[in-house]
Amino acid sequence: MTVVTVPAREGRAVHVQEGQHLRITTPKGAQAADFFAFNAHNVNEWLSANHTWVTTFCVKPREGDTLISRFRRPMVTMVKDGAEGVHDMLIAACDQFRYEFFGHKGPHASCSENLCVAMRRLGHIVDVIPQPINFFTNTRVEVDGRLVSPPNPVAPGAFVEMKALMDLICVVSSCPFDLKVDGWTINAGQGPTELLVEVR
Amino acid sequence: MTVVTVPAREGRAVHVQEGQHLRITTPKGAQAADFFAFNAHNVNEWLSANHTWVTTFCVKPREGDTLISRFRRPMVTMVKDGAEGVHDMLIAACDQFRYEFFGHKGPHASCSENLCVAMRRLGHIVDVIPQPINFFTNTRVEVDGRLVSPPNPVAPGAFVEMKALMDLICVVSSCPFDLKVDGWTINAGQGPTELLVEVR
Repeated sequence: MTVVTVPAREGRAVHVQEGQHLRITTPKGAQAADFFAFNAHNVNEWLSANHTWVTTFCVKPREGDTLISRFRRPMVTMVKDGAEGVHDMLIAACDQFRYEFFGHKGPHASCSENLCVAMRRLGHIVDVIPQPINFFTNTRVEVDGRLVSPPNPVAPGAFVEMKALMDLICVVSSCPFDLKVDGWTINAGQGPTELLVEVR
Repeated sequence: MTVVTVPAREGRAVHVQEGQHLRITTPKGAQAADFFAFNAHNVNEWLSANHTWVTTFCVKPREGDTLISRFRRPMVTMVKDGAEGVHDMLIAACDQFRYEFFGHKGPHASCSENLCVAMRRLGHIVDVIPQPINFFTNTRVEVDGRLVSPPNPVAPGAFVEMKALMDLICVVSSCPFDLKVDGWTINAGQGPTELLVEVR
């Protein structure tokens, strides 16, 4: 078994072979885990939230759902949801410009940069930031289409477990979002915390 | 003024200069218009539905909304909605594999292929199919996250008008979806019809 701690605000890549299980845990609770996956043999094929939700007909990943690539091939099945369904697939990965949009001055860690750094460590360049699966992230689409992010209720120790359906490189980012934005709560109030990634 | 008819099931690209207005009309009504836009000077910058909805905080494009690129730069403002808000930004562009998913045998026209062909005519290769803005497409996200597409109520002559905020190549595809899928109605029952594109 491989166990990787993703420090608060950082990202890590792990290899997951077909048939292996990947578990992501928020030890302290309420920490958004931006999740990306690439075909280990062709990183131009990546997990696509957008293609997934028109196949599962649900904008939330649910236990039993199979998440597919942009070429609509099965990549992972979510075999166990230990976070009571509090997940998101709609929020684009944060980046420098997102923090500036909210008024932040100067550089800020982001899930996009975490993804690029983690992939570069393995020799891969990321030209296009895929839409992540945001585990442990609380969003809701209102009847009129408005997208809201209420306070994050995810308990310490909550987790998700996925089974790989092809050889994958998976990247998990501890979302560095720490701005105080009214009505847009991503992480717990005390700021970003670490995530635990286990491959077995 | 440039006027282009997009034949049923096909796609067309048009240049739209900064400040110009682009109007898309469904003359017969209830025809999904998959809309893509690229920076005319750098087609690696494309309109991103995903980045847009976390900025407008709404998964529907609304009159007055500015739609942004994947680099979070303003590309178009929707200045007039003549279709009573019946639009979608969630359905990934259909492709050959989508039709096979629904049981179709053999080749089928698709918005992805229409996009690639339209861009190739101008000398550009499309490696990544962006998430389109699907005008005149009726979807709804239920409280539990389920994505549904009820019958399309868009009237003949309905339109949207956008103002370009940078020089653009815009692609409009008359969505070729014509399968009978229970609970997943995209176009009118009589099959795909043409669209009208005007640039002034």
